[in-house]
Amino acid sequence: MTKPFMFEKPLGMRDTLPVLYETKVSARNKMSDEIKKWGYQFIETPALEYYETIGEASAILDQQLFKLLDSQGHTLVLRPEMTAPIARVAASKLLKQQIPLRLAYSANVYRAQQREGGKPAEFEQIGIECIGNKSISADAEMIALLADALKAAGLQEFKISIGHIGFLQEFFLSILGTEERASILRKFLYEKNYVGYREHVKSLPLSSIDKQRLIEFTSLRGSEGTMEKALGLVENNKGQDSLAELKELSAQLKEFDVEQYVSFDLTLVSHMSYYTGTLFEVYAGQVGSPIGNGGRYDNLLEKFGWNASATGFAIRVDRLAEALGEPIQPVAPECILFSPERRLEAIGFAREKRSEGKSVTIQDITVVQNVDAFTRTFSEVHLFVGNGGNGKDE
Amino acid sequence: MTKPFMFEKPLGMRDTLPVLYETKVSARNKMSDEIKKWGYQFIETPALEYYETIGEASAILDQQLFKLLDSQGHTLVLRPEMTAPIARVAASKLLKQQIPLRLAYSANVYRAQQREGGKPAEFEQIGIECIGNKSISADAEMIALLADALKAAGLQEFKISIGHIGFLQEFFLSILGTEERASILRKFLYEKNYVGYREHVKSLPLSSIDKQRLIEFTSLRGSEGTMEKALGLVENNKGQDSLAELKELSAQLKEFDVEQYVSFDLTLVSHMSYYTGTLFEVYAGQVGSPIGNGGRYDNLLEKFGWNASATGFAIRVDRLAEALGEPIQPVAPECILFSPERRLEAIGFAREKRSEGKSVTIQDITVVQNVDAFTRTFSEVHLFVGNGGNGKDE
Repeated sequence: MTKPFMFEKPLGMRDTLPVLYETKVSARNKMSDEIKKWGYQFIETPALEYYETIGEASAILDQQLFKLLDSQGHTLVLRPEMTAPIARVAASKLLKQQIPLRLAYSANVYRAQQREGGKPAEFEQIGIECIGNKSISADAEMIALLADALKAAGLQEFKISIGHIGFLQEFFLSILGTEERASILRKFLYEKNYVGYREHVKSLPLSSIDKQRLIEFTSLRGSEGTMEKALGLVENNKGQDSLAELKELSAQLKEFDVEQYVSFDLTLVSHMSYYTGTLFEVYAGQVGSPIGNGGRYDNLLEKFGWNASATGFAIRVDRLAEALGEPIQPVAPECILFSPERRLEAIGFAREKRSEGKSVTIQDITVVQNVDAFTRTFSEVHLFVGNGGNGKDE
Repeated sequence: MTKPFMFEKPLGMRDTLPVLYETKVSARNKMSDEIKKWGYQFIETPALEYYETIGEASAILDQQLFKLLDSQGHTLVLRPEMTAPIARVAASKLLKQQIPLRLAYSANVYRAQQREGGKPAEFEQIGIECIGNKSISADAEMIALLADALKAAGLQEFKISIGHIGFLQEFFLSILGTEERASILRKFLYEKNYVGYREHVKSLPLSSIDKQRLIEFTSLRGSEGTMEKALGLVENNKGQDSLAELKELSAQLKEFDVEQYVSFDLTLVSHMSYYTGTLFEVYAGQVGSPIGNGGRYDNLLEKFGWNASATGFAIRVDRLAEALGEPIQPVAPECILFSPERRLEAIGFAREKRSEGKSVTIQDITVVQNVDAFTRTFSEVHLFVGNGGNGKDE
């Protein structure tokens, strides 16, 4: 092991400089306001949790967890996502009076990376969870609020893809028979590797009719007749029930007036293994990965002793900032350079400016080594120096 | 090792429920606004840093660091404070054009606790650093902005105690001769254990005059004549220079109109070993520990290859929230309960209310198991149910 360079940061760890910082704060605040307007309450959970409580429930690959030992020998994890911690708080009776329960969070989450130059190992999510609500109206609320939060942040165009993991799973198992085989096909879909999917289907010991159904399945994406085509592919009741749910969801989303942001993709799968019903991802602009995702998880709360259904979403603030394109340029402050004798004047002038809402740096000129470099980034420079200067740039 | 209970959290880790959450957000936002008005730029640094980069520079006891190994075998730490990470960024040339450099942060920091029921292991700090500014005007700016930030947060009464670690160190060494002996007395002062201090002084092999000087030193706290008394206690130039600095600082604080919040305490020491000159702590109300602290650290930047002086402060948001007393009660949202046929009406009514700035929860009444319990905490309940209800509580 060599000593890291003086300025180096661990793999995937990043500094956020002022321009990106203000862009994120602005998006976060606007989305928080919208989320509160829908009656959600924000809470905060700790960055470190017991591995046995949160690590195992969190559906993030073990190799992506940052683990450490505490002084008692317990294994701790840096929270890899927020749904499991929120479920822990929700189930702990502290807030359980009001069911369905609507909670929100804005927090950094942590996922260890194996390579340089890859994904961030720490990123901010803002999200909500609606717990104890098994109706489609909760799924519709998630997607409608997701759309409104993104619009509030200033995002003009985005697309929410909606799938149903229950439908997909039922369809695969009815043809393939085993979860093991289904998981191979799910992996191809997760990677959006449809060529690999087709090749793999061809190699399976199945009737040509079943192979054809598996191939046709990959066309259940985006287009108008997706739901009708899907109905033709499933035989059993469970599959048809899932489609009926999506149809009801689609109708409710029209009532929320967000249908223009929505399309259905029945091949959608997630790396979050706890989803049980509808699930969704949202894409925007040139950002290659989803800027948000969510879905229904009806079994997670059971791990915390409460048999309650739930839905939620999380928005990735870093990717949203990228999608927003134009970053927020922090307003450049004004600057007052003073010589020691005129400090009192400078302080008074700055106080006045600040009371008008302006940002003003005050600086003793005698310790500035390079006045030209120092003053370059201010919007205005006021001099209170010796006999010269009257508060105006000269 | 036994399996932790389902809802348990690691030692010192806490959940923040809505009332405290909103109180903290409100204080944070008001202080951020004030800090920006003084021309400081906010940045964010990662929660995890290399131990060799930040852990060693951070002046927090090793046993208080949360350490872990990354996949390359490097030791990482959860940042125990923000001054060292900000120094790393400041020295990395990214922002080095504008000297003196004014940076700010709002971040959680992590300190492992050894006992239950003790201090939090994760807490939020909001703070600033002014780097490359060796003049007293920078120290005065810290204290003036600290006072303005606390006032902006709504704190009415607080007291900033100012000391000088250079003076104290010089005084101790001139009498005691060795750093080892000085460190024992510093420890008594840090614990504010003046009885223990006096007992220890009596046991030292010193002349009765020197013992008397060490005892008198403990009276250099708070009262009017502190500085004059101090002058009588030191003989060498260095000690007198330190006192001259404090005198100049006191004069400048009068110009900033914050002298009513300030008192001098030459016995003040810090657990942060990197301070080199003036240092300060702020206390408020019934909160037993400082709600903020800061000081001058002229040698830390050297560890990152930049020979620059610096000053800064950090406010503990949890303790400030406690000092503020009256928590922010989140505004209770209104509630719309609807039956499925009247969903569209409910959505429209909610949209209208939200556009007026109100918070409104909409809820399908058919999935609410206990309507009385559910509606209890809303400020108003509107019913859109079957033929009954017209949006008014009945």
